[in-house]
Amino acid sequence: MEEYKPQSKWKNKLHEIIYEADTPSGKLFDIVLFILIIFSVVLVMLESVDEFDQHYHKTLLTLEWVVTIFFTLEYIARLISIKKPWKYVFSFYGIIDFLSTIPLYLSYILAGSQVLLAVRAFRLLRIFRILKLVKFMGEASQLQSALKASRAKIVVFIYVVLILSVIMGTLMYLIEGDEAGFTSIPRSIYWTIVTLTTVGYGDIAPQTNLGQLLATVIMILGYGIIAVPTGIVTAEFTRNKKGNEASNKGTVHLNTQACPSCSAEGHRDDATHCYNCGHLL
Amino acid sequence: MEEYKPQSKWKNKLHEIIYEADTPSGKLFDIVLFILIIFSVVLVMLESVDEFDQHYHKTLLTLEWVVTIFFTLEYIARLISIKKPWKYVFSFYGIIDFLSTIPLYLSYILAGSQVLLAVRAFRLLRIFRILKLVKFMGEASQLQSALKASRAKIVVFIYVVLILSVIMGTLMYLIEGDEAGFTSIPRSIYWTIVTLTTVGYGDIAPQTNLGQLLATVIMILGYGIIAVPTGIVTAEFTRNKKGNEASNKGTVHLNTQACPSCSAEGHRDDATHCYNCGHLL
Amino acid sequence: MEEYKPQSKWKNKLHEIIYEADTPSGKLFDIVLFILIIFSVVLVMLESVDEFDQHYHKTLLTLEWVVTIFFTLEYIARLISIKKPWKYVFSFYGIIDFLSTIPLYLSYILAGSQVLLAVRAFRLLRIFRILKLVKFMGEASQLQSALKASRAKIVVFIYVVLILSVIMGTLMYLIEGDEAGFTSIPRSIYWTIVTLTTVGYGDIAPQTNLGQLLATVIMILGYGIIAVPTGIVTAEFTRNKKGNEASNKGTVHLNTQACPSCSAEGHRDDATHCYNCGHLL
Amino acid sequence: MEEYKPQSKWKNKLHEIIYEADTPSGKLFDIVLFILIIFSVVLVMLESVDEFDQHYHKTLLTLEWVVTIFFTLEYIARLISIKKPWKYVFSFYGIIDFLSTIPLYLSYILAGSQVLLAVRAFRLLRIFRILKLVKFMGEASQLQSALKASRAKIVVFIYVVLILSVIMGTLMYLIEGDEAGFTSIPRSIYWTIVTLTTVGYGDIAPQTNLGQLLATVIMILGYGIIAVPTGIVTAEFTRNKKGNEASNKGTVHLNTQACPSCSAEGHRDDATHCYNCGHLL
Repeated sequence: MEEYKPQSKWKNKLHEIIYEADTPSGKLFDIVLFILIIFSVVLVMLESVDEFDQHYHKTLLTLEWVVTIFFTLEYIARLISIKKPWKYVFSFYGIIDFLSTIPLYLSYILAGSQVLLAVRAFRLLRIFRILKLVKFMGEASQLQSALKASRAKIVVFIYVVLILSVIMGTLMYLIEGDEAGFTSIPRSIYWTIVTLTTVGYGDIAPQTNLGQLLATVIMILGYGIIAVPTGIVTAEFTRNKKGNEASNKGTVHLNTQACPSCSAEGHRDDATHCYNCGHLL
Repeated sequence: MEEYKPQSKWKNKLHEIIYEADTPSGKLFDIVLFILIIFSVVLVMLESVDEFDQHYHKTLLTLEWVVTIFFTLEYIARLISIKKPWKYVFSFYGIIDFLSTIPLYLSYILAGSQVLLAVRAFRLLRIFRILKLVKFMGEASQLQSALKASRAKIVVFIYVVLILSVIMGTLMYLIEGDEAGFTSIPRSIYWTIVTLTTVGYGDIAPQTNLGQLLATVIMILGYGIIAVPTGIVTAEFTRNKKGNEASNKGTVHLNTQACPSCSAEGHRDDATHCYNCGHLL
Repeated sequence: MEEYKPQSKWKNKLHEIIYEADTPSGKLFDIVLFILIIFSVVLVMLESVDEFDQHYHKTLLTLEWVVTIFFTLEYIARLISIKKPWKYVFSFYGIIDFLSTIPLYLSYILAGSQVLLAVRAFRLLRIFRILKLVKFMGEASQLQSALKASRAKIVVFIYVVLILSVIMGTLMYLIEGDEAGFTSIPRSIYWTIVTLTTVGYGDIAPQTNLGQLLATVIMILGYGIIAVPTGIVTAEFTRNKKGNEASNKGTVHLNTQACPSCSAEGHRDDATHCYNCGHLL
Repeated sequence: MEEYKPQSKWKNKLHEIIYEADTPSGKLFDIVLFILIIFSVVLVMLESVDEFDQHYHKTLLTLEWVVTIFFTLEYIARLISIKKPWKYVFSFYGIIDFLSTIPLYLSYILAGSQVLLAVRAFRLLRIFRILKLVKFMGEASQLQSALKASRAKIVVFIYVVLILSVIMGTLMYLIEGDEAGFTSIPRSIYWTIVTLTTVGYGDIAPQTNLGQLLATVIMILGYGIIAVPTGIVTAEFTRNKKGNEASNKGTVHLNTQACPSCSAEGHRDDATHCYNCGHLL
């Protein structure tokens, strides 16, 4: 592809590797990133297991430093290789990248503080970056469009479920009272949702006959109305599929190239200019 | 819209604000109402949390008075602005409005009485009013029509589930007996429904081998027959969707205007007379 | 309907009332029967509740005698009014009718015996008779045909679920051992099915990390494969619906008349001979 | 069928009985095998029940020897009757057959060893052999193809569920802490999956108000997103069904004959040569 190169060559190369997944080196970079993200998420998890942390604290800390330094370098590389760095910094993924990189540095500043635990958990935000890596998978976008189309109906459904829970929960609160664990209306509503969604922990359970009768009604309701969101999404999938088959000719493949100027992604394979800012690709 | 005005102008204006949602002031009124309803429901919930009520009893009571006075005024305004007040008073939403407004007044009459708790819970009926506010959302009415169409099948389904529960529950009662918590047939049926709907509290659980074997059968049954209501509703949704797409031309938009004489709602945008009583809109 | 009458007139009349639901008296009989069945089922249930039985033992026994005598008379009437009584006696519903009528008589013969409890539960078999009363409801038969059509697929599905349960259950038995409640392979399989069907009692729950990891896999499996029976039944319903709409002209209404000779039911409205034995209707 | 017979006649006959299910003796062999597999699986299970094993240890061991000897002979017969035994030995089912036959022999070599328990469980691998016996059932292959077609979407779905679980689990870990059982992030994630899949053991349950609120969100999420795999598989089934009906003419019946040379199965009824190696059938 003939391209106009306003940036230095190595910056362009870096941009291609980091932001795009169409070249071999770009793909490799994405795979390495993917593995490192998973690895770092596992690290954070293991750290929270007391027995494990006591034995391997030093190893975990060292590995965490390795990961953090890699992500720091990657963050800097992203800033350098893009034309409008501020746009990246304040984009959703830019913020995620930043927040998930700083915890280790902050842990020295905030040492001994209470907020530290929460700050350290920020590292888990890295998991969102995986979503970015897979967002161009055709399957995911099909799922997304079906869910988007049925969004309004699902909101109405959740709305009805919540109103039902408030009413049923209050009734159970009046019927059962404190002994069975229904100590307040919010707790009764919590129990109602536990029952309606068929989770059923059993930490709170009705003891009276009337309470068990009402519980039975709630269970059958919950068992039945699960059919509603299922019906909505299925109807959307069925329609979608037909639509897809009928109109496949109308669609083109979008690649993972990102505009070097505005970072917009999802250009047509035959595009020479960014659809968003008109910059040459 | 040119209208014949038999009522005084301000009554008409009030009617427009309270009963309709097409004018800016009508919309604003609905939004304020919505927020107040949610606020008052949260109030009632917090009141039931003992620790919270002990600390903020006075604040909660004051806020409850504010809300109650607003709803009282709104109820009076509804009575004044409508032509046939009795029709409103004895309509479903009229009764809801009344019952959910009086508890605070009654609490002074019934002070110390046992019924008080139940009466206070009446305030939660306000939540039904939200349903009224959203009832013209197109999505909700689509859901409703799909559910209505599959109602007969769902009744048959629940019927079969209940018969199955009675038979299985009795069997479990005979097999397990008192030690495992199966103290009577109704309680065994309660357990069967808990299992069949895959809720599974675990407050009652089979202990014998035969009981666990039968429980396994019930679980797999419950796991399998959930497919039935789902299938019914989905088939209805799929059909509905096709119907909608085919016949969209045959439908018109209904607005939220209510007839000033008979309160009938859902007039065509181009209607000049009430479809129900013929009164000029 | 012009009919050849080989039986005495009153026997024919009786047959019409008991076996058919097309005449007013036949309908009335069915409704009375329906109420009595429900009533007698509730009686049996209440009897099993100890507190209730202690207070009202005499009343319950008297009412049970009333119900039993009615069902005895009905059984005799069925025998008299039909031409080939043996066919009825050994039919499915004939056996149900017999078994659900004798328990009270047997309770005097078996007094004090252990089997008594089980025998008394036989009265609950009456609930099957309700199924007979509703079996010609169009909705029920639609449900039935959809289920029949997907029977083979559902059997394969249950088969796979069982094999999966055996394998996963054995693995959990090896991993968890006795402390966590996985005391034998059958009990582990029981737990696996409890988990796979998303019932989750919690009476047995994995304690080790490896066990919890495997449990997670089983849960996600169970959560996912519920889609399979749902998909099967839904596809059948969708197809069925289309078929129904297309071929409604090809169907005729079947009435509830039973052949006086062979008891076959479901004759065409315009039938003059039994489709099964050729006897005049 | 006229056939070229390079092997001795009895070997050919043996091959027909063991590997094919189209002749009466072949069918009989499969049925006997099926019963023996089920029988041996039940044996292994009973052995793990302590009370049972103590009483009938000798009987169980004898029966296990009978079963093992049968499977040993069968394994040898399979080796003899096939032309390229190594292909069978290293095929999936060849390995299954071997591993599920040796445990009893190994138990004398490994006597007293710790691995023994796991080795004995290998006998349960026999259950996989049942899958082989039913693999040509048309229904199973339809299920399989529908699942295969929706595989990619289901992977994306499980992926999203896992990411959601990690995020929600970490949040719950930060909110609830040790007292409620959320002792580490992996355990919190375990709880999240228990909740999201609506299993709900109740061994770990949130105690704080904030925790219960978040749990409510997770439950409703889980209750809602079950619709997604269901929708995917259903859409696939619906499409599949249509495809099947349209193209039934394009399909031929495949029989269970296996090539005597390469063991490839699923030949056309009118085939005279193996589709895989060209050997005469």
